[in-house]
Amino acid sequence: MPKIAVAGKGGVGKTTFSGVLARVLAAAGEKVYAIDADPNPTLGQVLGFPEELMAQVVPIVQMADLIEERTGARPGESGAYFRLNPRVDDIPERFSVAYQGVHLLEMGTVKGAGAGCVCPENTILRALVTHLLLRERETVIMDMVAGVEHLGRGTAAAVDAMYVVVEPGQRSLGVAADIVRLADELGIPALWMVANKVRGEQDLDFIRGHLGGRKLAGWLPRDDHVVEADMQGRALYDAAPELARRVEAIARETGLIHEPSVPVP
Amino acid sequence: MPKIAVAGKGGVGKTTFSGVLARVLAAAGEKVYAIDADPNPTLGQVLGFPEELMAQVVPIVQMADLIEERTGARPGESGAYFRLNPRVDDIPERFSVAYQGVHLLEMGTVKGAGAGCVCPENTILRALVTHLLLRERETVIMDMVAGVEHLGRGTAAAVDAMYVVVEPGQRSLGVAADIVRLADELGIPALWMVANKVRGEQDLDFIRGHLGGRKLAGWLPRDDHVVEADMQGRALYDAAPELARRVEAIARETGLIHEPSVPVP
Repeated sequence: MPKIAVAGKGGVGKTTFSGVLARVLAAAGEKVYAIDADPNPTLGQVLGFPEELMAQVVPIVQMADLIEERTGARPGESGAYFRLNPRVDDIPERFSVAYQGVHLLEMGTVKGAGAGCVCPENTILRALVTHLLLRERETVIMDMVAGVEHLGRGTAAAVDAMYVVVEPGQRSLGVAADIVRLADELGIPALWMVANKVRGEQDLDFIRGHLGGRKLAGWLPRDDHVVEADMQGRALYDAAPELARRVEAIARETGLIHEPSVPVP
Repeated sequence: MPKIAVAGKGGVGKTTFSGVLARVLAAAGEKVYAIDADPNPTLGQVLGFPEELMAQVVPIVQMADLIEERTGARPGESGAYFRLNPRVDDIPERFSVAYQGVHLLEMGTVKGAGAGCVCPENTILRALVTHLLLRERETVIMDMVAGVEHLGRGTAAAVDAMYVVVEPGQRSLGVAADIVRLADELGIPALWMVANKVRGEQDLDFIRGHLGGRKLAGWLPRDDHVVEADMQGRALYDAAPELARRVEAIARETGLIHEPSVPVP
């Protein structure tokens, strides 16, 4: 089953796309893990998790006891000795929370976390991501912070496809170009561009003209249903059926779905 | 002169607000330093810096020779000994690029940078921010990554006011609540909420109802001029005069401007 990363400038709609794609693939019968890697996590809200379920979600890096049990050191103990290959295979089942077929895991903020950071909490996150990417039976969607700076070379190699979300404007397209460059260096095999907040043909032309030759996998309109769903705390997949249909088309276009048809609300 | 931090969820308009506010205060006669602390910097674009000027902007953390000269270690040498109080007082003049009265500095991405990270590049950034915040004659506007995680307690103490930008929706309001909590802990003296992408009275009511009692300093409408300026690479201050007027009103409302009137295009 596919391992997917979603990247792009802050606010372009990474979480929107990740959340709807997760539901689309769950509706296609896949077991989906949705990973929120943003330090300010909001994927659960886009997925429409009810408050009582969200209350059960604890970001992995905040589980001090778990981190100590598995690595031998507590979060923040960067000088301490700790295991670099902690056991993580039971974490997805034990600590994810499921709703409408999507299993949500929040990574949380690691103070001082970067590609080269060695600390107990970062070690457990990296082991967990690598483990999830190597599982055969499950679809994994990772909603990244912005780019792929936090993916190591080994982790990136296990990603099957990355979607880079852009909006009409030079700023998100410039950030996308940087992300694409790094993703190419890391050897991510399939890179797809997705346009969001499109107001019409002119916006699409503008975006196509700034993709440096990369093909657009599809586009999503600027849609007030997205704002309304966010205000009401509803799952975007349910609140914005047109958006869901378009994300499904993108999943099909890029080979994530092969079955002839999938029920979309 | 005031030292200002701008925070909020990715994509709510932190850079939009920072860039326009920088121009508003420059128009009021202040010497303004605008600091882009985002790993994917786009403040120069919002400020409308021409391409030939942007080509001169080098993020501080990429200046390996400068970092070695000042700290005694090159970027990435986290194991090496290096000075924890590098000289930085000449950096703003030497490495900022100015346009329309705003001096731009890009911080760049420090791999492994967090509140507690000790490495040559993070050390120079922290020294630089602290230095800028202590300068008496200059206004400083810092466009933050998302929240204030990267501000140490000492640095935060020198910030006079923080603006937290929100948009209609539970996601940005949830992130804002987290930011406000941390800012209070750090002792930032004045915290102002700014609503962006407002479509009408209902959006404003929604936002007011989710601010946990904090007062809105003002609001900005959802404005297609912002999208157009981003597509054309124009300074938002020039391309969106209504927005500029509203930001000026917020600056006045929150005590940043005392003079009776300021020319706005």
